[in-house]
Amino acid sequence: MSNKQAKTPHIALISSTLDMSFMKVAFEKSALDVRLSIYPDEDFHAADVAVAWNAPHGVMASMPNLKLVHSIGAGLDNIFADPHLPDVPVCRVVDSEHALGMAEYAIWSVLLFHREMDRHLQNVAERRWERPDQISARDYTVGILGFGTIGLTVAKSLRAMNYNVRGWARSPKEEAGITTYSGADQLTEFLSGCDVLICLLPLTAATRGIIDADLLSQLPRGAALVNMGRGEHLVEADLLAAIDSGHLRGAVLDVFQKEPLAKDSPLWDHPKVFVTPHIASMPNPKDVASQIFENATRILNDLEPLNPGDRNSGY
Amino acid sequence: MSNKQAKTPHIALISSTLDMSFMKVAFEKSALDVRLSIYPDEDFHAADVAVAWNAPHGVMASMPNLKLVHSIGAGLDNIFADPHLPDVPVCRVVDSEHALGMAEYAIWSVLLFHREMDRHLQNVAERRWERPDQISARDYTVGILGFGTIGLTVAKSLRAMNYNVRGWARSPKEEAGITTYSGADQLTEFLSGCDVLICLLPLTAATRGIIDADLLSQLPRGAALVNMGRGEHLVEADLLAAIDSGHLRGAVLDVFQKEPLAKDSPLWDHPKVFVTPHIASMPNPKDVASQIFENATRILNDLEPLNPGDRNSGY
Repeated sequence: MSNKQAKTPHIALISSTLDMSFMKVAFEKSALDVRLSIYPDEDFHAADVAVAWNAPHGVMASMPNLKLVHSIGAGLDNIFADPHLPDVPVCRVVDSEHALGMAEYAIWSVLLFHREMDRHLQNVAERRWERPDQISARDYTVGILGFGTIGLTVAKSLRAMNYNVRGWARSPKEEAGITTYSGADQLTEFLSGCDVLICLLPLTAATRGIIDADLLSQLPRGAALVNMGRGEHLVEADLLAAIDSGHLRGAVLDVFQKEPLAKDSPLWDHPKVFVTPHIASMPNPKDVASQIFENATRILNDLEPLNPGDRNSGY
Repeated sequence: MSNKQAKTPHIALISSTLDMSFMKVAFEKSALDVRLSIYPDEDFHAADVAVAWNAPHGVMASMPNLKLVHSIGAGLDNIFADPHLPDVPVCRVVDSEHALGMAEYAIWSVLLFHREMDRHLQNVAERRWERPDQISARDYTVGILGFGTIGLTVAKSLRAMNYNVRGWARSPKEEAGITTYSGADQLTEFLSGCDVLICLLPLTAATRGIIDADLLSQLPRGAALVNMGRGEHLVEADLLAAIDSGHLRGAVLDVFQKEPLAKDSPLWDHPKVFVTPHIASMPNPKDVASQIFENATRILNDLEPLNPGDRNSGY
């Protein structure tokens, strides 16, 4: 045991889009020994750690004691987007429950199309009783675009339901029972067999706008899209064109280029688009607080923090 | 091997509500050696086997050679309902894929309520961006009313997704990881903990109308109902009253007292009721044909048929 007096971490909660008081509540409920400031309260400048979600650019550069930037989720794109981001470690929250929540959302969305619940929801409006032939899950293929930790959990959950599952990642991966593809040269082959395509990519310069007319045209006719990555992965106008031309069956979208989704967005009331308000999975705030506290304590004791991101790859 | 010349089974397809030609196609595609008649073609009277789905009452009593009545699904209630049913074995189709299809439907319906997709679907109409707190599947309880073969498969699928699962059956059952209840005296305790109640009961004199105002009042406030059993299990007016009073969150209904659901039914456009056209699971017609052929062959060779029902218990 060290004789060193433990320093109480000073943590600043910084967001331009989210009311961060829910994180303050989570720290207090967990009885963790931290000093908390919520930006723009004056004393946030003195904090050791910034907990950031769409922080205004340049704010973190104004914090002289900053030793760590922490996300409240898996994605770090909103942090790396700050051109004035100080040169300190940037860490994510890794949460197995979070991946399970993502799997639940994916399963609901896949069943919506596979079991034609989208069609039944439409038929109800016309009081039409129509019984399409049932397709076995074994004969239905789900493609996971972005085969990282969350993609793997989602893929395994779908495999457990007997779906044919394939995954695509930038670099080669292997997983029993799942057909994997990698790199730009295998993307066309990957896409060509998908009944449903689920986007779980990280947002980087290479993946921004990746789901465009060209990519969608490589899906088989009648395929559907589920976007659980980031809104910026998708060219929304290209999706609507692909659905309206009859090439795609429909889409479930949880993320959008601008959130909350603008009141005048055509996505809201398109009959073949299902909009949810970025709820595919929300990490449990007490788990998030506990991981941030652990990393804050590590950094104040000159230990490597857990789950750091890499600003070169962007995730 | 027997030297006995195999007799070609003569099978009559009999329904008053379904076009049975899909079963003729399935027998033909499977190249099974059968003679087929479709009621009311004149030669159906001579058949050895009746394949019945809501057969007009008394028709089977007019078949002098009848040795077996076969359902095209798991339910035998529509066959036992015929007061003139001849005293021959009545058999069901048992299909593992069928139970998996039921599990898919149950999972979609549970996620609809657990992940508040019902609320999101309603919010979309008002372009409202609202993010309710997420509940862990571990803290969400699904009750299976009718814990037979299909109920068990559904329960296991939900357990695999981390749900709390409980089952109720007429007689005691045991299953690892699932809390089981039995008999009328444990029904109240079973119901009191259900966030979602799934009906998978067989239809018998004892279960007809079982889901009434009294039963629904024993569910916790905010619970939801999924009816995948038979329409006759549910008193539809009592369900609507329980939803409209705010006691129940909503319902997913796949079965109805009268099918197809009448055009003027208030269920169609109730905002908290999701109607599907009895599609929770439809056995694969080729599998059905193969099981019927097996049992027809057995009965013509004086062997016990597989998967017989019991007309005393009614299922």
